[in-house]
Amino acid sequence: MTIKDVAQHCGVSVSTVSRVLNKHPDVSERVRSKVMRAVEELHYVPNSSARDLVCAASDAVGLVVRGVGNPFFLDVFHAVESTIAEAGYTMFVQNIHPGEDELRAGAQLVRSKKLRGLILLGGCFDYNADDVALLDVPFVCCSYTNSFGNLDEKAYSSVTIDDRAEAHRAVHYLVKNGHRRIAVLLESTDDRSISELRYMGYRQALEENGIAFDEALVLQTRGYGMDAAYDAVCEALKKELSFSALFCISDSMAVAAMKALHDAGRSVPKDCSVIAIDGIEMSAYSIPTLTTLSQPKHEMGEMSVRLLLDMIEGHTANRHVVLETEPRRGGSVCRICD
Amino acid sequence: MTIKDVAQHCGVSVSTVSRVLNKHPDVSERVRSKVMRAVEELHYVPNSSARDLVCAASDAVGLVVRGVGNPFFLDVFHAVESTIAEAGYTMFVQNIHPGEDELRAGAQLVRSKKLRGLILLGGCFDYNADDVALLDVPFVCCSYTNSFGNLDEKAYSSVTIDDRAEAHRAVHYLVKNGHRRIAVLLESTDDRSISELRYMGYRQALEENGIAFDEALVLQTRGYGMDAAYDAVCEALKKELSFSALFCISDSMAVAAMKALHDAGRSVPKDCSVIAIDGIEMSAYSIPTLTTLSQPKHEMGEMSVRLLLDMIEGHTANRHVVLETEPRRGGSVCRICD
Repeated sequence: MTIKDVAQHCGVSVSTVSRVLNKHPDVSERVRSKVMRAVEELHYVPNSSARDLVCAASDAVGLVVRGVGNPFFLDVFHAVESTIAEAGYTMFVQNIHPGEDELRAGAQLVRSKKLRGLILLGGCFDYNADDVALLDVPFVCCSYTNSFGNLDEKAYSSVTIDDRAEAHRAVHYLVKNGHRRIAVLLESTDDRSISELRYMGYRQALEENGIAFDEALVLQTRGYGMDAAYDAVCEALKKELSFSALFCISDSMAVAAMKALHDAGRSVPKDCSVIAIDGIEMSAYSIPTLTTLSQPKHEMGEMSVRLLLDMIEGHTANRHVVLETEPRRGGSVCRICD
Repeated sequence: MTIKDVAQHCGVSVSTVSRVLNKHPDVSERVRSKVMRAVEELHYVPNSSARDLVCAASDAVGLVVRGVGNPFFLDVFHAVESTIAEAGYTMFVQNIHPGEDELRAGAQLVRSKKLRGLILLGGCFDYNADDVALLDVPFVCCSYTNSFGNLDEKAYSSVTIDDRAEAHRAVHYLVKNGHRRIAVLLESTDDRSISELRYMGYRQALEENGIAFDEALVLQTRGYGMDAAYDAVCEALKKELSFSALFCISDSMAVAAMKALHDAGRSVPKDCSVIAIDGIEMSAYSIPTLTTLSQPKHEMGEMSVRLLLDMIEGHTANRHVVLETEPRRGGSVCRICD
């Protein structure tokens, strides 16, 4: 069974069948459904490997997801996927572990699949020029940017929130509600990544509001997992640290923190307010609902694809887009009077 | 930069470099680290496409994940991934939507990547012989089996729990704790899939315990999402349906159900006990902790790979493995006296 058989079966040219299979937009709905019916009936399985070799310029782009267990990435993933499909491109996905090198994985994917561009969902915040030299196609950093590296901003594109400013905003919201003993739950204060950026925002908000920094209120976890977050909060409560509010660098860590507070007999928000950044589905169903700054996940995915396709199709220059979060008011923050 | 340059650089043969890159187990740690260091220093990017063409029999297997948003699949995914890597095989992953055809996606992946076998994580419970004829390599259905189809059991392998028996067990546990007005929260009573199987277990447990079936206590959602589960429980409470316990077909639906009960002023478990099947991370941090039958996610993934590799390497016949859940006692079920 070859593509020729399919073409003969429905009386169209081989290139028309190919266009349908490659999801080109310039095929009428009537022809498209006729071809797809024939593909169904004849049990034809397109050989994409052969297709890759035949096409001079493929219509494929790649997505490297670093940290597939990150619930925040799921919605972004779906937005990337559907935007790429709507644009008539094919997508190849590669999942890698948080410790793996997304540039190396991306370069390998580009070469083996002859990709025209790449979206990196999650990655390092400190590339230098040598690192990105591996990639000879346009690429977009989705959900992060080169905050700690020395990369020329003309050398890459990014779509992200301003992690530092958003953390500042979250902590400032607690201060506005009367809190001054504000703890922070984070993975690291110097990971040259998202945890450090959000920590910087926390520090800045304290300073601007004339609140002295207290190192004891930095609750450091042994990882990004819920178990680590739970343990760190339990430990702080055992030490009888006094704080009326807790800023968590992620929603999932905040849900685990609320559980730890509850298990220690503290009521959220009466005894301790909790706020975070992310806006994942799970935290909308915690008790109480988590108050959080919700990242524009759909827009982030969609915008990343648009930047990439502009570069591929229009040969535009690299760009950097900073999106804003949307406050999701839950029930985990209350006003106190000192 | 070719594989020859790497070999020359570290004074080993090309085939040794190839074995290291393909993660073959028969390479000493000393040689492996020497080669990997050279790969790093020379910025060598292996061309896996060329590798596929050169190797007569590839060492690659595929994983098709249907419903990438399913939190239950994440742990299984990691177990599959690490077991495949440990065995020295390469893995290609394809994510598909719940509505897509995993057999077609698998067949395409097998052909384009010259795969030696396939693991399907999530899929239809009612294949027939024509459906699987697309696949000419061994494959394992992971987390589901052909409960509703007419497929000869010699034609495929599977690793799953007994969904019907486990649902029976969950509902029986509620009965043992004094409950007789037991509602069920499910997506469908006749989807020829997991929802229907767990519904059958619910019905059977009621019958065996002499409890009359009440159709009003079947709370049907408009999907597997948390939002749909939340809405269905709110609606049931608005109708003032009386039930002292709720069996949910998944953990994530149960977490949303507990939120709906809470928002309606009902206390879990005092006013309503809740039990589910799955054992995902999120439900360990709900308030109260969800009581659930935890699926052996790691074992499920590992066992699926073992069955597959036995067939690939030892040419063994297809097999079917049924695993048991492990009760995870939370705080969401209490004993009542009627």
